[in-house]
Amino acid sequence: MSLQNTRILFVKRPSGLFDPNETFKIVKEPVPSQNDLSNGQILVKNYYLSLDPAMRGIMNDVRSYTPPLAINELMRGNTVGEVVISKNSKFKVGDKVEGLLGWQKYAVSDGKDVAKIVPPPKASLRDYLGLFGITGLTAYFGLLDGKVKVGETVVVSGAAGATGSVTGQIAKLKGARVIGIAGTPEKCAWLVNELGFDVALNYRDPDFSKQLTKATPNYIDVYFDNVGGDILNLCLKRLAKYARIVLCGAISQYNEKLQKGPSNYVALIAQSGRMEGFIVYNYKDRFQEAISDLSKWLQQGKLKRRDYVVEGLENAPQALLRLFKGENTGKMLIKIADEDENVKSKL
Amino acid sequence: MSLQNTRILFVKRPSGLFDPNETFKIVKEPVPSQNDLSNGQILVKNYYLSLDPAMRGIMNDVRSYTPPLAINELMRGNTVGEVVISKNSKFKVGDKVEGLLGWQKYAVSDGKDVAKIVPPPKASLRDYLGLFGITGLTAYFGLLDGKVKVGETVVVSGAAGATGSVTGQIAKLKGARVIGIAGTPEKCAWLVNELGFDVALNYRDPDFSKQLTKATPNYIDVYFDNVGGDILNLCLKRLAKYARIVLCGAISQYNEKLQKGPSNYVALIAQSGRMEGFIVYNYKDRFQEAISDLSKWLQQGKLKRRDYVVEGLENAPQALLRLFKGENTGKMLIKIADEDENVKSKL
Repeated sequence: MSLQNTRILFVKRPSGLFDPNETFKIVKEPVPSQNDLSNGQILVKNYYLSLDPAMRGIMNDVRSYTPPLAINELMRGNTVGEVVISKNSKFKVGDKVEGLLGWQKYAVSDGKDVAKIVPPPKASLRDYLGLFGITGLTAYFGLLDGKVKVGETVVVSGAAGATGSVTGQIAKLKGARVIGIAGTPEKCAWLVNELGFDVALNYRDPDFSKQLTKATPNYIDVYFDNVGGDILNLCLKRLAKYARIVLCGAISQYNEKLQKGPSNYVALIAQSGRMEGFIVYNYKDRFQEAISDLSKWLQQGKLKRRDYVVEGLENAPQALLRLFKGENTGKMLIKIADEDENVKSKL
Repeated sequence: MSLQNTRILFVKRPSGLFDPNETFKIVKEPVPSQNDLSNGQILVKNYYLSLDPAMRGIMNDVRSYTPPLAINELMRGNTVGEVVISKNSKFKVGDKVEGLLGWQKYAVSDGKDVAKIVPPPKASLRDYLGLFGITGLTAYFGLLDGKVKVGETVVVSGAAGATGSVTGQIAKLKGARVIGIAGTPEKCAWLVNELGFDVALNYRDPDFSKQLTKATPNYIDVYFDNVGGDILNLCLKRLAKYARIVLCGAISQYNEKLQKGPSNYVALIAQSGRMEGFIVYNYKDRFQEAISDLSKWLQQGKLKRRDYVVEGLENAPQALLRLFKGENTGKMLIKIADEDENVKSKL
């Protein structure tokens, strides 16, 4: 009896809020064997899958930095795993790897866009989906783009998420005064007490707008926006001269049929401000430099991160919906299989 | 009998579309005489007043790059005129000057923020309100900010206005393909036939959106926005990778009680685009350099401009409203007095 693979396909393009049951289809098929692989290919057993807000974006049939998902395409996603069969001289069985291997337990790859990873001290495989992955690198390069200077005021929305929590900490390392915006008192407490943010505000508080004004007496020099919508609009009203808005995401808008534009954008003229879209892939040739810095800060205890792990690949569709509801603190991951399993004996 | 001065005061802060009769009050008072002036002061007879969209912005009591108008304040505006009395050693009677001297026939000034002007060949005094004034300098530096490269596609809205018409011509001089957006067939014809724009589109055409798509097969590298609103939103959908939006104005929104935000702003993320507010005063120390270039291009016949002159200071309130209706082609000016009048004999 052959080992079963689980793969999750994107089967229906949603409009507005996606329905996990309609959007995805879980299929079972045999895991490819040694004989099924061509020369140059590897078989990877995935341990963790990253869930990201951008996964909603690729469901739409619009022009973007990456092509939209095709119907019946394997759902895209970054994973970490281990090579269990190799017909590629660059990889050997047992190598730990990271790559865009999709929502599946086992993945066949030609080895391109798959990177071997060796976690440094205090780090784990799954950090390559979080701190050293797209979300951590986004925080690193996005903040660089924001050109934060010592003493400036930085506001981060989605601050308790994977990117926001790292962004705020790096801004502190750069000498800024950092205000985080999150959606629960627990998240706010984590930001201030554990991560060292100067202030954390709960946008669900009725007087949030007043709190934001009070927390930014010198206005906002850098606003790192993960959420869009009303929070972006409020922050626009508080811009300092020459303020920079790093547009990283707009999680509040991705599932809206009618997206909201920031009516206060004219403040960009009044304050000679800049609002700039940010895609981490533009910095691909500098990822190693960033990982080296992030790794150093992690070892020095200057950077903390938290994972929010959901067990079981089958639960990924529902978990993705929970990501948009803001249930996670830190990086949301799907645990597909135990790392310590002796994978070789199973094949 | 003393000579009468006419001054127009800002007397009521409007909400939404301003009413010229309610917003302003015309007052008559004696022109200050030699004895009324203190040491260091000059008296200027104004010939032309510049009308600018930004005049609506300063009516609002909001934080901006310049303080809002106070109630009963002389309405602000740039003028060109001639010194008729001088108690300031830097100015002599007969000097032609430009400055923020307000909506009045005669202005007393301490000489600060007033510049002596000597029009180069082919230029006139009133070019210091248009081509060499705030609107021309805005085109020059705004386009610089947009970092236009040879062969790129530049779209300019409000293209038949004072700033837009100069912007498009400079973009052509920089080797770009230039598409102008204006509001009448006559304006569009002027842009293409007289000013050398590659394409001009009338945003009032029912299929304007389709025309814009057709006119931008390689998408938009630089969008110079003078209007905001729906046109900004449409252009966001056509951004090329690394596109730059120079936010210069939002004339379509200034008189709206509820301003519209550009719901397609998320395209800035998808295309790593930048939207940056632009204030010409940030470049004050480089104005001379710009005027020298603009003057050279004018003399070489590479730059054309048109003035839309309304006679009589008393008509300025109504004319300002017409500016927002888009009645002007080129620079809107109020003619306050004839230049060739022998002013000295009158005092």
